[in-house]
Amino acid sequence: MFITFEGIDGCGKTTQIRLISDFIKNLKYGIILVREPGSTPISEKIRQLLLEKDNVMSPEAEAYLYAASRAELVKKVIRPALKEGNIVICDRFLDSSLVYQGIGRGLGLQAVYELNAMAVGELKPDLTVLLDIDPIVARSRLKGRDRLENEQLDFYNKVREGYLYLARREPERIKVVDGGRGVKEVFEDVLSIIKKSIGRELL
Amino acid sequence: MFITFEGIDGCGKTTQIRLISDFIKNLKYGIILVREPGSTPISEKIRQLLLEKDNVMSPEAEAYLYAASRAELVKKVIRPALKEGNIVICDRFLDSSLVYQGIGRGLGLQAVYELNAMAVGELKPDLTVLLDIDPIVARSRLKGRDRLENEQLDFYNKVREGYLYLARREPERIKVVDGGRGVKEVFEDVLSIIKKSIGRELL
Repeated sequence: MFITFEGIDGCGKTTQIRLISDFIKNLKYGIILVREPGSTPISEKIRQLLLEKDNVMSPEAEAYLYAASRAELVKKVIRPALKEGNIVICDRFLDSSLVYQGIGRGLGLQAVYELNAMAVGELKPDLTVLLDIDPIVARSRLKGRDRLENEQLDFYNKVREGYLYLARREPERIKVVDGGRGVKEVFEDVLSIIKKSIGRELL
Repeated sequence: MFITFEGIDGCGKTTQIRLISDFIKNLKYGIILVREPGSTPISEKIRQLLLEKDNVMSPEAEAYLYAASRAELVKKVIRPALKEGNIVICDRFLDSSLVYQGIGRGLGLQAVYELNAMAVGELKPDLTVLLDIDPIVARSRLKGRDRLENEQLDFYNKVREGYLYLARREPERIKVVDGGRGVKEVFEDVLSIIKKSIGRELL
């Protein structure tokens, strides 16, 4: 089972993934936690390029770098882990590219989708938890800010709307959770969604 | 006018580009020399990732990294330089990805072509000089060897055949020069080809 977490920076993904992974471990499932960009040696180097404040680059180059990191992660980690029966939880996946580069940067959803064809192939998350949050609230949570987190609020508003658009298009896969509340309240919703999905797929 | 040089490692591209750029400068044309991967700040960092011996990566990630470097180079350097009326000479371009990743690594010509759609758009070289050489001869010329140059000979044979296949498909654009001879003899052929093209396009 392949679960992804999505949402704008500061939405609380990392915290919720930590909590949910503890829950799944207690169920005695094998669980693999990965993040995008990153989680392979070359993908982590690509992550450094992408998040370094001084690296100014075109949206096109950015889209390709995310796809490069993704291609490696899918091939070397995600596919093998799923094949061995693990639950894989990924902090960001293709949806991030679709909304950040496709909508936020204006490259277009379809173009970014096609660009990623070689990276993802037929792989698709079974479940995507979208932590929806007002960019102003999200931003107030962020302390150390990298290049992406210095983006303007209108960019984040576009990204947020992009996520909600994807969720309306694929309501079965993408579950929207109000991420603007306290950690515990959000986790209750996330847990309930995950339980339903695990129940359906694995129990 | 956009001219690219192609050929397997050790075919003599760099030497011939240096000679031909001197010739073009004497004609008082504006000339911009670039190389792939590289020639922008982010593209040079991507170059380091690609050529570092210890960086093991999937062919898919490799193809995306080349495309990332290319997207940036096209947008930030090649298109603006062509718009200002310069002659742009590029050491490797899309054809390299087609034969190295598409044929040599087996990703498929069409898949690599589609992957590069966003990077190159409608841009196509007006002229491509392919320095054809036996991989054994090419290899004997190489001193410092980076990751790519440590590949096996059968890989280089596939790449060479890939180049010749592209040249048969596009004989008007891709001109094959026997690169196995001395620098001076090769340059005479290259010069003659460039003169014909410049004459046609710019005189």
